[in-house]
Amino acid sequence: MDDTQLKTYMNALGQSARKAARSLRLASTETKNLALNAMAREIELAQKDILSANDKDMKLTKQKGLSAAMLDRLKLDADRVKSIAKGIKDIAALPDPVGQSDENWTRPNGLAFSKIRVPIGVIGMIYESRPNVTADAGALCLKSGNACILRAGSESQYSSGAIHSALARGVKQAGLPEESVQLINTTDRAAVGLLLGGLDQAVDLIIPRGGKNLIARVQRDARVPVLAHLEGLCHSYIHAEADLEMARQILLNAKLRRTGVCGSTETLLIDTEITRKALPDIAQALIDAGCELRGDALACETHPGITLATETDYFTEHLAAILNIKTVAGIDAALDHIEHYGSGHTDAIITEKMEIAERFLRDVDSAIVIHNSSTQFADGGEFGFGAEIGIATGRLHARGPVGAQHLTTYKYAVRGNGQTRP
Amino acid sequence: MDDTQLKTYMNALGQSARKAARSLRLASTETKNLALNAMAREIELAQKDILSANDKDMKLTKQKGLSAAMLDRLKLDADRVKSIAKGIKDIAALPDPVGQSDENWTRPNGLAFSKIRVPIGVIGMIYESRPNVTADAGALCLKSGNACILRAGSESQYSSGAIHSALARGVKQAGLPEESVQLINTTDRAAVGLLLGGLDQAVDLIIPRGGKNLIARVQRDARVPVLAHLEGLCHSYIHAEADLEMARQILLNAKLRRTGVCGSTETLLIDTEITRKALPDIAQALIDAGCELRGDALACETHPGITLATETDYFTEHLAAILNIKTVAGIDAALDHIEHYGSGHTDAIITEKMEIAERFLRDVDSAIVIHNSSTQFADGGEFGFGAEIGIATGRLHARGPVGAQHLTTYKYAVRGNGQTRP
Repeated sequence: MDDTQLKTYMNALGQSARKAARSLRLASTETKNLALNAMAREIELAQKDILSANDKDMKLTKQKGLSAAMLDRLKLDADRVKSIAKGIKDIAALPDPVGQSDENWTRPNGLAFSKIRVPIGVIGMIYESRPNVTADAGALCLKSGNACILRAGSESQYSSGAIHSALARGVKQAGLPEESVQLINTTDRAAVGLLLGGLDQAVDLIIPRGGKNLIARVQRDARVPVLAHLEGLCHSYIHAEADLEMARQILLNAKLRRTGVCGSTETLLIDTEITRKALPDIAQALIDAGCELRGDALACETHPGITLATETDYFTEHLAAILNIKTVAGIDAALDHIEHYGSGHTDAIITEKMEIAERFLRDVDSAIVIHNSSTQFADGGEFGFGAEIGIATGRLHARGPVGAQHLTTYKYAVRGNGQTRP
Repeated sequence: MDDTQLKTYMNALGQSARKAARSLRLASTETKNLALNAMAREIELAQKDILSANDKDMKLTKQKGLSAAMLDRLKLDADRVKSIAKGIKDIAALPDPVGQSDENWTRPNGLAFSKIRVPIGVIGMIYESRPNVTADAGALCLKSGNACILRAGSESQYSSGAIHSALARGVKQAGLPEESVQLINTTDRAAVGLLLGGLDQAVDLIIPRGGKNLIARVQRDARVPVLAHLEGLCHSYIHAEADLEMARQILLNAKLRRTGVCGSTETLLIDTEITRKALPDIAQALIDAGCELRGDALACETHPGITLATETDYFTEHLAAILNIKTVAGIDAALDHIEHYGSGHTDAIITEKMEIAERFLRDVDSAIVIHNSSTQFADGGEFGFGAEIGIATGRLHARGPVGAQHLTTYKYAVRGNGQTRP
C-alpha cells in the first residue's frame, strides 16, 4: 500500500469501528456473552490453522535471530490455544460492567441522579510479539462494549491473523458487527502513526503494551488519550520491626517467583538498624535460589556474595534474577527512596508495626501499595478482576490492573418531572 | 525573558510544583481547609488591590477593543470579589475526597484490598479572561490535594496576579508550601507551549478552559493528559407523548435562562406527529421571550416566525437566543440526529412514556442525559458537587461536571499477613 492507500484503509477501519461501537454500546449482556463464547469455540475449532500460522511466524522470527525469550512468548501449541479459548470463556463469565450504576442520589428539587457505567467507544491496541493478546484484548474490549482496532507486532502477524479470523467469526455468529474486533492487516509502521493520530476522531483511547521504545513512541505521537503501562520498578521494604522469617519468604517470592513480570521486586530496602542481623540470612537464601545481589556499602559488608550497586542499578527494572539492595535509616528514608527511584507501580512494606504499615500505605504514591505480602500479587486475576489488558502506570482514568470494568467510562442520567432551573 | 530564560523559569515552576504536590498529598483535611479559609480571608482583605489591578486590566482591554461580553467577564466589583471569597469558603466546607475508600474487598487468600482516592499530582490550568477562575481553580486543586500551575489569559493578568498573591498568602499561613498554587507571571505565549510539554514530566494533567482555538491548540500540542471542555451542543427532544405545557416551560428555560452557558439547548427536536399541534404555541412563547427560531421545512410551515435553518445551524453552538428546530419521525430519528450532530455534553427528552424515556437515557451517548427537565441543570452545583472546574466533554477519567472529587485518582492498598503468590 502506498501512503494514500494506507490512509484510506486506516480511516475505513476507524469509521467501521465507530459504527460497530454504537451497536456494541447498545448490545445486551446476553448477546455479548453469546459472542464471547462463540469466539472461544471458533478459536478451538481453528486450532490447526492457528498452529500452522504460528509455525510460519516462528520460522520467520528465527531467521531474524530474535532472543529465546521472544521466541517463547511467540510460540503456541495445542495447550496454549486451549488456554486462549478458556481465557475468553472466563471473560464471558465475568459480570458486565456496562449499565452498572455506581451512585444514585436525589437533590432537594426532586431531580434523581444516577452515575452509570458506559463503554469508552473505540480502543486502539498496539502490542508486541505475544499472539494471545489478540484474543485477550478483543475479548475484554467486546465484554466492556468497546470496538477495537488491534495492531499486532510484525513477528506474530500470521498467528494474530488466524486468531483474529476466528474471533471475527464468533462475533458475527452472535449477530454483532464483524468490525467490532478489527486487526490491522499490514505490518507497515506508518499504520501505527495513523492509529495514534486518532483516524479522524474515530479512536477514543490507545493502549500500548510492549517495550520502552513502543511506549515512548506512543506517548510522543498520540493525539488521543493513552493508557500506558510503563515499567514496574517495585520495592520491598523490610522495616526494623518486621517478622524476619516472613520477610525472607516474601522476598524470595517477590523477587524470584517470576523475574520477568512487572510486579517483581527490583530493590530491597532494609532498615540499617537490622541490616547486620537480618540481611545475611535473606541474602544467602536469595543466592541459593540463583539471585545476583547488588547492594550499598553497608549491605556489602554483611555478606561476601553482595557486590557494590551503581546509581543506575537503583533506576533499573532488571526483569531478571538480580536484586538491588539499599539500606535506609527508617521509614522516612524508605519513602524518599521510593519517591525518587520508583515507577509508581507496586511497592511493599514488611513490618509488624501497624502504624508504620499504615503510614507506608498512605504515603507511597504508587498504584499498588502492599503490607506484609509479595509485590507479585500485582495482577488483575489476583485482585479478582478477571483478565487484564495491562497494568496502568499513568495517573488518569485507571491505575494498576486494567480489567473489563476499567475499560468503561460513565454518564449521568437525570430523572425529573418538569424541573426548570431558577 | 528570552527562550532559555523562559524555559528555566517554567521548569523551576514545574519542579517546585512537584515538590509542593508531595506536601499537599500528605496534608490533612484540617490543614487544607485552614489554608482555604485563609485564602478566602486574604481575598477579602485584598479587595482594594484586586479592584485596582482589575481597573488596569479593564483599561488595557478596552484599548484593544474587545467585545462587551468579554469586558463583562473580566470586570470585578466589590460584590464579585466577595463572591470569589465565598466560593473558596464553600470549597473548604466540601467533604475531602482524598483518602476516601470507594471499594473494599477480601480475596480467598486473605488479602484485603481497598481502593482509595488520592490526588492526581500537578495540574496545569489554562484559561481565558475570567479572573475568578484563578481563585476557583486554585481552591479546587488545593482541596483535592493537587498543586497547580495557573496560566491566566493576558487580559486578566493584573487581576489574576492580585488574586493569586492573596491565595499564596493564605496557603502560606496554613503552613503549606506557597508553591502549591503558582501563577505563570509572563504573558509570553511560548509559556503555554512549555506547560503543554509537561515541564520535564512535572505536570500530570492539563485542564484548558476557553474558546475553541485554545482547546484545539491544547489538544494538538499537549504531551500530557488533557481534561477538555469542548462545547455543549445540547438537544431537547419533545416526544409525541409529552406533556406539552411542561415541554413549553422546560424549553423556555433550557434555551433562554442563560444563553451563554454550555448547558443551554441549541436544538429542539420534535416529533413530526405533534409538530402542527404543539410547535406553534412553543414557538410563540420563545419568540415572545426574544428568541430567534430556525427550523426545517415542516417547522417553518407551522409558524411564520420560524426561518429556514441551514445544515450548519444544526452543528452550531449558538450561545445566543437562537434555537434550531428539527422535526423527527420518532425516537429513532431523534437518537440518530443527536448521534450525528451532538457534542456529547447534555441532551434531554420530554415525554410521559416511561419506556421511551428510559430508552433515551440509555441510548444517548452524552455525559448528561435528562428526562423531563432542563438541560441548564448541567452544572456541578446542581449535581451537588459544589464548585466545578469545568464540564468535561472527553470520555476518559471524568465526564460532565468536574468538581474536587473528580480531580483525584486512586490507588490500591493491599493488606496481608505473609501471603506469597503460588
